[in-house]
Amino acid sequence: MRVLAERTDAQLVGAGDVLIHCVAALDNAGVGAITFLANPKYRSQLATTRASAVIVSPRDADATALPKLVTANPYATYARVASLFHPLQPVAPGVHANVALAPTARVADSASLAAYVVIGERTIIGERVCIHGGCVVGDDCTIGEDVTLYPRVVVYPKTSIGPRTIVHAGAVLGADGFGIAEQAGRWIKVPHVGGLVIGADVEIGANTTIDRGALGDTVLEDDVKLDNQIQIGHNCRIGAHTAIAGCTGIAGSTRIGRNCKIGGAAMIAGHLNIPDGTVISGTTGVLDSIREAGMYTSAFPILPHREWKYVASLVRRLRTLNDRVRALERDKPEQGE
Amino acid sequence: MRVLAERTDAQLVGAGDVLIHCVAALDNAGVGAITFLANPKYRSQLATTRASAVIVSPRDADATALPKLVTANPYATYARVASLFHPLQPVAPGVHANVALAPTARVADSASLAAYVVIGERTIIGERVCIHGGCVVGDDCTIGEDVTLYPRVVVYPKTSIGPRTIVHAGAVLGADGFGIAEQAGRWIKVPHVGGLVIGADVEIGANTTIDRGALGDTVLEDDVKLDNQIQIGHNCRIGAHTAIAGCTGIAGSTRIGRNCKIGGAAMIAGHLNIPDGTVISGTTGVLDSIREAGMYTSAFPILPHREWKYVASLVRRLRTLNDRVRALERDKPEQGE
Amino acid sequence: MRVLAERTDAQLVGAGDVLIHCVAALDNAGVGAITFLANPKYRSQLATTRASAVIVSPRDADATALPKLVTANPYATYARVASLFHPLQPVAPGVHANVALAPTARVADSASLAAYVVIGERTIIGERVCIHGGCVVGDDCTIGEDVTLYPRVVVYPKTSIGPRTIVHAGAVLGADGFGIAEQAGRWIKVPHVGGLVIGADVEIGANTTIDRGALGDTVLEDDVKLDNQIQIGHNCRIGAHTAIAGCTGIAGSTRIGRNCKIGGAAMIAGHLNIPDGTVISGTTGVLDSIREAGMYTSAFPILPHREWKYVASLVRRLRTLNDRVRALERDKPEQGE
Repeated sequence: MRVLAERTDAQLVGAGDVLIHCVAALDNAGVGAITFLANPKYRSQLATTRASAVIVSPRDADATALPKLVTANPYATYARVASLFHPLQPVAPGVHANVALAPTARVADSASLAAYVVIGERTIIGERVCIHGGCVVGDDCTIGEDVTLYPRVVVYPKTSIGPRTIVHAGAVLGADGFGIAEQAGRWIKVPHVGGLVIGADVEIGANTTIDRGALGDTVLEDDVKLDNQIQIGHNCRIGAHTAIAGCTGIAGSTRIGRNCKIGGAAMIAGHLNIPDGTVISGTTGVLDSIREAGMYTSAFPILPHREWKYVASLVRRLRTLNDRVRALERDKPEQGE
Repeated sequence: MRVLAERTDAQLVGAGDVLIHCVAALDNAGVGAITFLANPKYRSQLATTRASAVIVSPRDADATALPKLVTANPYATYARVASLFHPLQPVAPGVHANVALAPTARVADSASLAAYVVIGERTIIGERVCIHGGCVVGDDCTIGEDVTLYPRVVVYPKTSIGPRTIVHAGAVLGADGFGIAEQAGRWIKVPHVGGLVIGADVEIGANTTIDRGALGDTVLEDDVKLDNQIQIGHNCRIGAHTAIAGCTGIAGSTRIGRNCKIGGAAMIAGHLNIPDGTVISGTTGVLDSIREAGMYTSAFPILPHREWKYVASLVRRLRTLNDRVRALERDKPEQGE
Repeated sequence: MRVLAERTDAQLVGAGDVLIHCVAALDNAGVGAITFLANPKYRSQLATTRASAVIVSPRDADATALPKLVTANPYATYARVASLFHPLQPVAPGVHANVALAPTARVADSASLAAYVVIGERTIIGERVCIHGGCVVGDDCTIGEDVTLYPRVVVYPKTSIGPRTIVHAGAVLGADGFGIAEQAGRWIKVPHVGGLVIGADVEIGANTTIDRGALGDTVLEDDVKLDNQIQIGHNCRIGAHTAIAGCTGIAGSTRIGRNCKIGGAAMIAGHLNIPDGTVISGTTGVLDSIREAGMYTSAFPILPHREWKYVASLVRRLRTLNDRVRALERDKPEQGE
């Protein structure tokens, strides 16, 4: 415990010589495990956990007699403790015998390329990069040091990925955006000649897609965190430290500020500006630019289906209700108040 | 027909010696085909179908003079009949010459591994498993007997898949969840050390993603059916026999009961409980736990765009409308009623 | 400029001998670049662009003194100009040494198959087809001439793809649809024995999924354009020249007309009809068939979160508001008007 407290700058309360050998959740921790309370929903489990120690906020410190790390940010402290027990595995360097490596590609000696990986012409793979099975990296890409590409990631040509970035399986980086011009009832494809620039310390979820720019680049700044199944359109710019939850879609040319938090299944239209520090709730549709940071939501309230049918029909006829109120106001008898 | 009736426990009405050699849809069936009516939308096609026989419910039995199987559940009976005409193809056992098989992996003799498959250390592949081209299965996985992985499925390490489960192309099973802790405006990654446990008879759609647990496992119980492009967050538990339609997202740590039906593009927030037997309509956002089983919906009614603009502006100003009604109520002259 | 005007049938205004060697966006064009103004949001950049020429509509022609191509449809003209500067790269024909080609597959001499591609039995690959690394094409498929499959596309058996169609990375074409029949609380899988027929000049985005038919085919007609992460259910028919933006889901057996435009993250239920020329806004849920072409929208207006909470609670209680207005109307004193 003493070591954990030192490494995380948390305050140690209780026996400092308890031996901790793993992390675990409140409800299934056992002897030797340290657990944490971050979400107040689970506070009642604090009394019954069989963990040997716990990470809590000052507010919850009195609620348990266990040895504890007290910290203003228990989830972040837990993340650090868990990383101590589960350090990143060092990559075994080397190129698998069955890799399609273009003659002009440059791969660092400390990088690891697994089976059935394809690397294009002039692409540069940095130190300690780990590329899992079945990834395809196109021509003229730059993969920064300590990057991890999980299996079956596709990186289109001319994409650049910054150091320490992690890309989960099935993600597609740098495909053509949805650029089509209508003429006489048919579609003409707009060539996508821009690139995709991904910063350092970014994490990209499984099966997420990020399009290249039509002209100019699509940009993800440093420390952007994307969950699974997200779609980012061509020429978007996502500011540093912005986190976006799963199933969210962002249409082309939209600029999202720094330190934004965007909930799951949000949908943001194209050519918009979202300022730094904005919070968008899950399932919210953003159809216009936002001028002022804050938390924004659009979601029809959930109801039992029959009740919803009735309410939805009233919403449809809100104009009528409004007209009826106006008529009542007009017809209101004069009063002396 | 007689054989079909016996195999499906349906009631045979009409000539039992009609020869049936295929299944077909109402509107393009021909001689020798058996068709079915399950969706009342298509009832009018019953009169004009050129099928040789039909599967109907007792309610629709009089609407056709064709030989028929009468059953309370025509769609299920059709599914059984279609399976008789289209049995699962037996797998040709064997490992393709070009498979990257870790030395400690154990593959059953009756299993089939196609080209460019990668199998990790200590992973166990059961009897008659069929792994299509380009799949990547990580270390320490267990793939139960008769499982099918369609092309390019990725299975992260320490994932377990139960017997007879089918996983469609591009699905990603067991990626890290979206666990990040904020500290001083930056994100710290939370290690994902839990696993993913998938039951028996599960089906998982194309490009669906299911994250592993952060601590403890993400669990799909037996006979869960997932459509395409679904996202299931870390530490979710989906109860047995629950079916979820495409594009739905379920955030982390949510528990969905047994025998639930969740419509397409529904979005369910994290840390919620949904009881057994709940029905969630398509496009519905669930932001709070549901206490009682039933059918729930949230969806703004669709309108012609101009009308929508007007209605949406009224919704925005509902507070004003409410205040106006309150003012009218306050100012209402006393009445003798 | 003169050449560009001739090739695009646009009207040349200003010096025709300006040398143009690239295309660029208004805000980062330099000497030698031609740019364009199509979205009025960017009109102010016309005054400050450092491009050597510009493509504009007659309405904007006076707003710049630069040499220009004046055309009723600047975006389409730009698309043509950009294609002149960025012609499609001719494919280097040949089959990579490491391709799993079934003995009965027929591959045109001019086709290009990259590393780790799998081609099934009896499948036909047309002239100048380009199949990138890691694609898996099943048995009995037909891939028309000049088709491009980007890396890791999966094509299930019995799928047909028309000439010049482009499929982006990670797309899954022809997986089983979500057909399950409930019986006694369990699910029976409905065999999917139909096919998938994709027309000519179609474009399909990254990680998009299109299911095969259960009975009969799923059909995409010519010149259909699909963005990324779209889900098309079994037995849908999408009419020619229809364009669908990212993250949209279309449930099974729905028929979408020709020349429709469907916004991002729209969700369309199953068994519906959408007429030719319909426009569906982004994030709109379509739960019933549409009878008349037009633009349709359903979206709860976005609000600051606190305001949304209040408005959402009023929506929930719209029935009460309606009742209160009715009571006021009933109690209204008789008037002489």
